[in-house]
Amino acid sequence: MELLDEDTLIARYFAPIAGPAGLRLLDDAAVLTPPAGMDLVVTADALVAGIHFFADDPAGSIARKALAVNLSDLAAKGAEPLGFVLTLALQAGRTADWLGGFAAGLAEEAASAACPLLGGDTVRTPGPLTLSITAFGTVPHGRMVRRTGAAAGDRLYVTGTIGDAALGLRLRCGDIPNLGQGERDHLLDRFLHPRARLALRAALLAHAHGAMDVSDGFVGDLAKMMRASGATAEVDLSAVPLSPAARATIAAAPELFDVAVTGGDDYEILAAVPLAEVAAFERAAMAAGVAAAPIGAVLPGTAPPRFRAADGTARSFGRGSFSHF
Amino acid sequence: MELLDEDTLIARYFAPIAGPAGLRLLDDAAVLTPPAGMDLVVTADALVAGIHFFADDPAGSIARKALAVNLSDLAAKGAEPLGFVLTLALQAGRTADWLGGFAAGLAEEAASAACPLLGGDTVRTPGPLTLSITAFGTVPHGRMVRRTGAAAGDRLYVTGTIGDAALGLRLRCGDIPNLGQGERDHLLDRFLHPRARLALRAALLAHAHGAMDVSDGFVGDLAKMMRASGATAEVDLSAVPLSPAARATIAAAPELFDVAVTGGDDYEILAAVPLAEVAAFERAAMAAGVAAAPIGAVLPGTAPPRFRAADGTARSFGRGSFSHF
Repeated sequence: MELLDEDTLIARYFAPIAGPAGLRLLDDAAVLTPPAGMDLVVTADALVAGIHFFADDPAGSIARKALAVNLSDLAAKGAEPLGFVLTLALQAGRTADWLGGFAAGLAEEAASAACPLLGGDTVRTPGPLTLSITAFGTVPHGRMVRRTGAAAGDRLYVTGTIGDAALGLRLRCGDIPNLGQGERDHLLDRFLHPRARLALRAALLAHAHGAMDVSDGFVGDLAKMMRASGATAEVDLSAVPLSPAARATIAAAPELFDVAVTGGDDYEILAAVPLAEVAAFERAAMAAGVAAAPIGAVLPGTAPPRFRAADGTARSFGRGSFSHF
Repeated sequence: MELLDEDTLIARYFAPIAGPAGLRLLDDAAVLTPPAGMDLVVTADALVAGIHFFADDPAGSIARKALAVNLSDLAAKGAEPLGFVLTLALQAGRTADWLGGFAAGLAEEAASAACPLLGGDTVRTPGPLTLSITAFGTVPHGRMVRRTGAAAGDRLYVTGTIGDAALGLRLRCGDIPNLGQGERDHLLDRFLHPRARLALRAALLAHAHGAMDVSDGFVGDLAKMMRASGATAEVDLSAVPLSPAARATIAAAPELFDVAVTGGDDYEILAAVPLAEVAAFERAAMAAGVAAAPIGAVLPGTAPPRFRAADGTARSFGRGSFSHF
């Protein structure tokens, strides 16, 4: 194993991912000229080996996930990615191969979202690999889609499918028997490689009252959005979109439905759309190639959201979302 | 000990430090409207317990240092602080007392620099406490003071005093005997509580060709700035400003001079000023209340910088700066 000083590490692995604002990562800081008339949207997420990913996940997958979870926040706010900074606390013993894989994954995700690296910091840690990304995006002035914007009467939508990553994590830990290889691959990939719904940005900006990304579990994140908006909701659980792999899993082990709707790492978008806009929102989402399923309605009041099963009975969940604390 | 969920932790400890752009930390993202005609300067630094500070340092001191080291980068770029985001990877077992102290230190540093908290993320780690801060500042469009801007003929200045923090770290580890209590307190405080030279911003913007903050050791950071600028330098080591405490330490143990000029954590500013501007720069620094000592000159060429002792002999340093790798 080769020992690298920080400057070599930056020059070799990270400078090639840097955008012009990153000044070839030669300075202490990046400089951005924000486009006129636009607001800057800023979001930050940290990931720790053993908590948010497995230390032996492929290096490129770890990098992709760290950036994707931040891009997911930008997508939910209707923001177009502008760039990101990365701080990386590395253990001794990460090889040049590992770093090469990490940088390649990061470069791939950055390029696919047109979101260049602007700068950051690389430090040594005696503990687990820890990454922190701060990502920047732009929205027209005053137009960021807020978590607080849901209003009584709005229809609630969720993109993609819910629960795949939480089931993928269960699978990674070995406790879902009798699943076909294709279904296994789908769930594991959804856990390893979240995909930010950036294509939905324009539809959200044009038609949504409020939105957030579903990262800590659908049930809990929905409750969080309703609290932040001073409203409540009624959700039809049978309308919550599930992938064929998740359906197969739940058919074999019905108790895993709760894992699917309360587990984390979906990185889908939950949006509240006023009734007058639902037709236009659905058309815009379809045009963008993003499935968006209507799952319920925002209601007045501050009670916890109500969840109803297909037979009309009320369901409650002991623990609505993933919490680190 | 009380167990806190993440939302309570944010509402209780961090929301009071948030600026308006932080949206009471209720959203997934912050939104900034960058002032017209200004560029945004972005910098990020990570700190790990056991590497950048001691795990048993006072919680408030850890928070102050994490923000100050980022403010120092903004100061060196001539940028006025606008806000910051914090990601915090916390171990289990940090008490409400600890968090209260941490938040109080963070609030104090943020208020003194008019640099509000905009958002962030709090996660659990099985490893050491790890903090990452991304800080934002503004400069007039096109005016960020670059590390790459030093030009042959410029005079080199360094602010404050060099080496206190590195000697403070030695002292913290117990290996400087026979030092008075006032001197000990000074060195320990300089290690624990870096103070960003934000007051020098206007002088740098108006008069400097280039600047960087001295964070990884004076000798190595100077070499780094010269490399980035495509120049070299000659430095008069007897002109490098030392505090009375550092002078007393070095008088008793002359070998510690090398620790002072190569150790890290100074958070002073190294600036290259064209000769036509030196008088105005010195006046502006004095008016700002920041001591700035002339220590040498930028020269043409790409050889490593030359360091001369008081008697004119050349000095070299095996290891010019702190590197994590």
